[in-house]
Amino acid sequence: MADLSSLARPSHKYIQVYVPGKPIEEVFRRYGLRSVIKLASNENPLGPSPRVIKALRENLKSISRYPEGSAYYLKKELARHLRLKLEELIITSGSSEAISLCLQVFVNPGEEVVFPRPSFLIYPILCHMIGAIPVEVPLNNDFSYEPDRFLERITERTKVLILCNPNNPTGTILTRKQIEYLWKHLPQRVVVISDEAYAEYVESKDYGSALDFFRNHHILIARTFSKIYALAGLRIGYGIASAEMVNLLERIRPPFNTTGLAQLAARVALGDKQHVRRSKQLNTRGKRYLFRELSRLGISCLPTEANFILCDFKRPTRELVKKLERRGMLIRPRPASGLGENFARITIGTMAENKALVNMLKQLL
Amino acid sequence: MADLSSLARPSHKYIQVYVPGKPIEEVFRRYGLRSVIKLASNENPLGPSPRVIKALRENLKSISRYPEGSAYYLKKELARHLRLKLEELIITSGSSEAISLCLQVFVNPGEEVVFPRPSFLIYPILCHMIGAIPVEVPLNNDFSYEPDRFLERITERTKVLILCNPNNPTGTILTRKQIEYLWKHLPQRVVVISDEAYAEYVESKDYGSALDFFRNHHILIARTFSKIYALAGLRIGYGIASAEMVNLLERIRPPFNTTGLAQLAARVALGDKQHVRRSKQLNTRGKRYLFRELSRLGISCLPTEANFILCDFKRPTRELVKKLERRGMLIRPRPASGLGENFARITIGTMAENKALVNMLKQLL
Repeated sequence: MADLSSLARPSHKYIQVYVPGKPIEEVFRRYGLRSVIKLASNENPLGPSPRVIKALRENLKSISRYPEGSAYYLKKELARHLRLKLEELIITSGSSEAISLCLQVFVNPGEEVVFPRPSFLIYPILCHMIGAIPVEVPLNNDFSYEPDRFLERITERTKVLILCNPNNPTGTILTRKQIEYLWKHLPQRVVVISDEAYAEYVESKDYGSALDFFRNHHILIARTFSKIYALAGLRIGYGIASAEMVNLLERIRPPFNTTGLAQLAARVALGDKQHVRRSKQLNTRGKRYLFRELSRLGISCLPTEANFILCDFKRPTRELVKKLERRGMLIRPRPASGLGENFARITIGTMAENKALVNMLKQLL
Repeated sequence: MADLSSLARPSHKYIQVYVPGKPIEEVFRRYGLRSVIKLASNENPLGPSPRVIKALRENLKSISRYPEGSAYYLKKELARHLRLKLEELIITSGSSEAISLCLQVFVNPGEEVVFPRPSFLIYPILCHMIGAIPVEVPLNNDFSYEPDRFLERITERTKVLILCNPNNPTGTILTRKQIEYLWKHLPQRVVVISDEAYAEYVESKDYGSALDFFRNHHILIARTFSKIYALAGLRIGYGIASAEMVNLLERIRPPFNTTGLAQLAARVALGDKQHVRRSKQLNTRGKRYLFRELSRLGISCLPTEANFILCDFKRPTRELVKKLERRGMLIRPRPASGLGENFARITIGTMAENKALVNMLKQLL
């Protein structure tokens, strides 16, 4: 029989080999742990809005029917919420599908995609999937953005520039001034993806969302219901772009990319402004607490505009992370390539969860 | 500003332009209809198993957490159910994602993908998405398969052969003899996708699933929980292949392609053997009823091994389908390219739904 991997697309050999593992539940079962605190995936520690749970409970019977693929009603709510036109929105399976569709539309094999380093791990994977060449641009030493560094790396072969803003896993942002500078100097043929999954958590007044610019540039803004809206498990996000770009993305969107339950949950979550406000307040409070307490323990915390903190433990974190895991506490070690083994990313939890983490670290450090 | 569509991948211009429309609920609201019978999308008319609803209700709070991406527990259940190894399974967002991943892994732009005509509408779309060249092979005049026709169209540029078995929208099957003949004569470098979304409905003893062959050939079998398991709205299906092929597919599977709720529902649905049996019995009964009654009305019905019937109304169905729609009855006109305007596909419903359809047709024809 012909060798199977030799039949596969050549670019796929750069994708890390998948090693199937047992789920974390199995690990905990082995340790005999009953409860676990997960500060590893930037989920909303408050959980979903009770109004969402109620709406889902009342609509469970619909699961035998195909979803309404265009997510018309959700788009209508979002359009009102963001003051956009229906045609400027596309609903996707998490924000990462919006990014993936945009890369698939615009990037031919061998063309370049520029993005920051360190940043979200999915970008190089999405590049290799379509045979694109990932071009990683280092952030400054303090993990802040330097627009000129990106502009220097734009070549004739650059098709897409991805900005992660706030950036995962650093929590740093592009300011409005920096964004304006970028649009001014970037060749117009370059498509920009502005990944704004954590936008709702931003407190800085200098923050520059791409929302004010997308009508006059080739921009896709990717947002999600996985973070502050607490729907990570339902896989739903959205893209904002010109009607022309949305039309191109819609051509290759899988017809049933989001479920009816997810569309319903997103509509209800969007409407529960009190739950969103509470989630943001909890995050602000937890951020201040963790910042202060972790610093006291000699851990260097990066100022963040998101719901996580990048921590430099100033020593390898591998053993520490394992010890925390055995106590039922999960944080994310080395959350991006380009970060040394001293780094870990901590999601801001409930106050009780934050305190539990600090107490464990006091014992272990 | 540079013209946006000129920046897109050239192959995408063959994809039909997306025209956003209002959902069917809006249409019915306009007609003042309260209830609707949907025999258009091959869904299970019994609805989901009550055990599934119960399990979901008890686990709704989990939606704020990311799913366990590998779907370990579901794979374990499926492996037991089908007597396969865990490594021979991949869980996907409906069976169409399994097909899409396989095409993405093996087909480079400009290479050919062979599949039947008429067949599932998604195949040419998936081809254009990756710049592959779709090669459609006509079925016989009675819509049965003719293996030699496919073998004749295999060239040096053929990378994948897709077989839809039972075939949507004809309900016809490949027999075990035909499958064996195909494996014997097909060049070994050609990857076969056997789309078996409707396999659980088959009654014919001659049916040839690819299940007995996948370990010795480059085969992906795509199956789904959308049909007899009644979970179309949750988007969950699976692929069966050699461990080597599964590993290649896993490299480009989106890390959270199915939700935790969908994985849970699939596990419970798989275990509710009574619900599956009832669903199949209902289908058999409805099939016989519709076949007899529609034939009496002068409609030519194609013998089917699935949960739908391809009908030749011997006159254009456009007006008729519109009139049915105004009465709250949905069927699928012209369900595939390669079929004339006289054809429509009717999903087999509950007995009450089937009777309602027959009564309406008696009035309208």
